[in-house]
Amino acid sequence: MDHRGRQKRFQQELALAKLDGFLVTHLPNVRYLCGFSGSAGVLGYARERFVFFTDGRYTEQARQEVTGARVVIARKAALAAAAQWAAGGRSRRVGVEAEHMTLSARAGVAKFLGASLRPSQAMVERLRMIKEPAELESLRKAVEMGSSLFGTVVKAIRPGISEAAVAAELEYAARKAGAERMSFETIVAAGPHSALPHWRASAQPIPSTGFVVLDFGVILSGYCSDMTRTVWVGRAGRAARELYQAVLEAQSAGLQAVRPGATTGEVDNAARRVLQRARLGRYFTHSTGHGVGLEIHEAPRLARGQSELLQPGIVITIEPGAYIPGKGGVRIEDMVAVTETGHQVLTPTTKEFIAIPGAGTKAAPETFAS
Amino acid sequence: MDHRGRQKRFQQELALAKLDGFLVTHLPNVRYLCGFSGSAGVLGYARERFVFFTDGRYTEQARQEVTGARVVIARKAALAAAAQWAAGGRSRRVGVEAEHMTLSARAGVAKFLGASLRPSQAMVERLRMIKEPAELESLRKAVEMGSSLFGTVVKAIRPGISEAAVAAELEYAARKAGAERMSFETIVAAGPHSALPHWRASAQPIPSTGFVVLDFGVILSGYCSDMTRTVWVGRAGRAARELYQAVLEAQSAGLQAVRPGATTGEVDNAARRVLQRARLGRYFTHSTGHGVGLEIHEAPRLARGQSELLQPGIVITIEPGAYIPGKGGVRIEDMVAVTETGHQVLTPTTKEFIAIPGAGTKAAPETFAS
Repeated sequence: MDHRGRQKRFQQELALAKLDGFLVTHLPNVRYLCGFSGSAGVLGYARERFVFFTDGRYTEQARQEVTGARVVIARKAALAAAAQWAAGGRSRRVGVEAEHMTLSARAGVAKFLGASLRPSQAMVERLRMIKEPAELESLRKAVEMGSSLFGTVVKAIRPGISEAAVAAELEYAARKAGAERMSFETIVAAGPHSALPHWRASAQPIPSTGFVVLDFGVILSGYCSDMTRTVWVGRAGRAARELYQAVLEAQSAGLQAVRPGATTGEVDNAARRVLQRARLGRYFTHSTGHGVGLEIHEAPRLARGQSELLQPGIVITIEPGAYIPGKGGVRIEDMVAVTETGHQVLTPTTKEFIAIPGAGTKAAPETFAS
Repeated sequence: MDHRGRQKRFQQELALAKLDGFLVTHLPNVRYLCGFSGSAGVLGYARERFVFFTDGRYTEQARQEVTGARVVIARKAALAAAAQWAAGGRSRRVGVEAEHMTLSARAGVAKFLGASLRPSQAMVERLRMIKEPAELESLRKAVEMGSSLFGTVVKAIRPGISEAAVAAELEYAARKAGAERMSFETIVAAGPHSALPHWRASAQPIPSTGFVVLDFGVILSGYCSDMTRTVWVGRAGRAARELYQAVLEAQSAGLQAVRPGATTGEVDNAARRVLQRARLGRYFTHSTGHGVGLEIHEAPRLARGQSELLQPGIVITIEPGAYIPGKGGVRIEDMVAVTETGHQVLTPTTKEFIAIPGAGTKAAPETFAS
């Protein structure tokens, strides 16, 4: 990863914002700029150079990982040490990360920085939005590993097995495949739970008929994957197939809208319009997607009214859904990279309607959306 | 859980702090006070009553879970809605959680609250420190589930298998046993990695000789467990056994010091002194323990110089360790509850020295600490 190049671009951003000092406290931002992957450390900028502050627990790791910054093992808290160092550099405007710094932390650094302290927004996040070729490669590998687990999940699903047991099989396979960890809490939402977009995985058994939403991702070399597939258990009626087809068409329309120069709101609208035309608009209760990288949710957001312009190197999810309360829901999600000429879908997994044999007794519902 | 009783105690704390309004934004605090376990919501207090604000994704969950507070499904962000409501209540001093609220969030609520905004410290955390009988029962169940997994881990350990594969077996067993999830990232630190207190679990194989530190926990009904055991792989020499014995004695001394009226610093010192006498003081590089409950790390901290008085109902870890750089380390950790008359160790797992057969060729090191 090109940490020195990132630091150079960050310095340019700081100059534009008229900041001569900065404290990077959000750990994914710290990792992005200097490579440190541990859980305590602050990257300071002052006097036109970077210094990384951490504590004795990370001496060895910091020396191995940090690029382009001197490493200081602080006796006091890393943040206080970094603030004191930046203050000593006679910086006149020292930026801090307003979306991440707490009021308590601010009080701690204000002792040193006083009136030079400047809350700043998304200074590093804006850089992180455009992925370098090496980052695209890391994301691709994470996505491929995530996708490779789908077969395991499908095999685990059968009526009577708990949602949590399906999640267990998936996460076990992920660890065995070499994932650092899951990129978020695995969602296995079966039957009526599939209508709850933020369900996780419960001890309740998968019913003999209904949708199962599977939303999961892995972390590999620090980069996240994110995918959703929805399968049907039992004999599928027309209503279930139609709901699935509508969401699939919305997802396809969202993907097609991804190209340089399109706005994030336009992509959201492309997917949303398809569901609206199918009279399912009010059942699509969340946004169409989000950026993915070192964090599972990062810039940009693909939602109504958003005006961020897509650029080559942006990697996002496209994940429309429709959720019929009390009955069931469908979500389909791929990761996609914006390219010079359009887009490339990263997720290789099939989106065909998959029906898993059920108990074979219960009839499928005839209507879903009322 | 006694949410109404907690709300009453919280109101008393607010009165003492001369606050007539409050915004609870830290989700474990929200859960503690009103029962909501989702990932977006704010509990507001004004006009002597509580109102819970969330968004449309959580309509059903909020209605099922929230006790003692009216539920408002906000069209705007929950925090803004809560701030506006509190401002409308003519509150003159509205507390916010300074350790959790970001500068950006503060700017958002300041629009409504203006000069009435009061950053406050640990208002809910201080209540959470003393566990109710039902919470002790939940913690006990989580600890028992965590402990029940230790046999699985020990069986999985052998030279050549990766640390991550051991973690995979453990986490798989945890899910199967019904854990909601792990309470933190599982640590499997083998050979020289055992000397790094914050190692996680890598793709590297377990060597034929050396310590393996196993630090893990589960979440059950929202409550966390936390335990560490260290086993030896291969033929154990005197040095390894002595290091283990020293840490075990320190851990035992720490446990013995736990009783009502003792300070957290005294407990830390009781464990630390044993290692200092064994000339291992400088290898014990972290604090002795921490509170556990709805969060894996909560109040109090058991560290040098801390003066918090232990009280019945406090649940803490006692986890001294000794880490010889480049060679290996040992940590032993139990959870313990402070009782009226002393303490009760919650973790039932054996602390005897366990040696797992190695490749049988490599000799154990003769000295550990130099």
